[in-house]
Amino acid sequence: MDTITITGYIAGALTTISFIPQVARAWNLKETRDLSLAMLVLFAFGILLWTLYGLWMASPPIVAANAITFLLVLALLVMKVKYH
Amino acid sequence: MDTITITGYIAGALTTISFIPQVARAWNLKETRDLSLAMLVLFAFGILLWTLYGLWMASPPIVAANAITFLLVLALLVMKVKYH
Repeated sequence: MDTITITGYIAGALTTISFIPQVARAWNLKETRDLSLAMLVLFAFGILLWTLYGLWMASPPIVAANAITFLLVLALLVMKVKYH
Repeated sequence: MDTITITGYIAGALTTISFIPQVARAWNLKETRDLSLAMLVLFAFGILLWTLYGLWMASPPIVAANAITFLLVLALLVMKVKYH
């Protein structure tokens, strides 16, 4: 695997993993007041398009990172609606 | 411009723009308790690496989106530390 692809995987791992402490925080606090609903909705749509872009660019790091991130953002959206 | 690049730009625009209502919310509420500090730090590092990946992949959508997102996440990080 070349340096470019490895960098992409590390970048994808970081931006994806970053949502885990955010999901955990929302889950533990049962509070999402400071999270912006508009942010979550726009971000979720964007992440779906990034996944499509990654498929077209034949970039496994982009596809993998965004597919998992989408699920984590979906969890935040559900909690944002539930704990509002 | 081809469909792939246009999709990338729309994806980048959405995930980047999504941080604007989040920055606005933190600014207006002067509250960032529900935002995870670990999330912001990991995300900022990841975004920097995505920018590098975009440069190497010669992908203007990835570079543009991530460079701007980095500045918005930086603003959130400053407010997270300040309003904590």
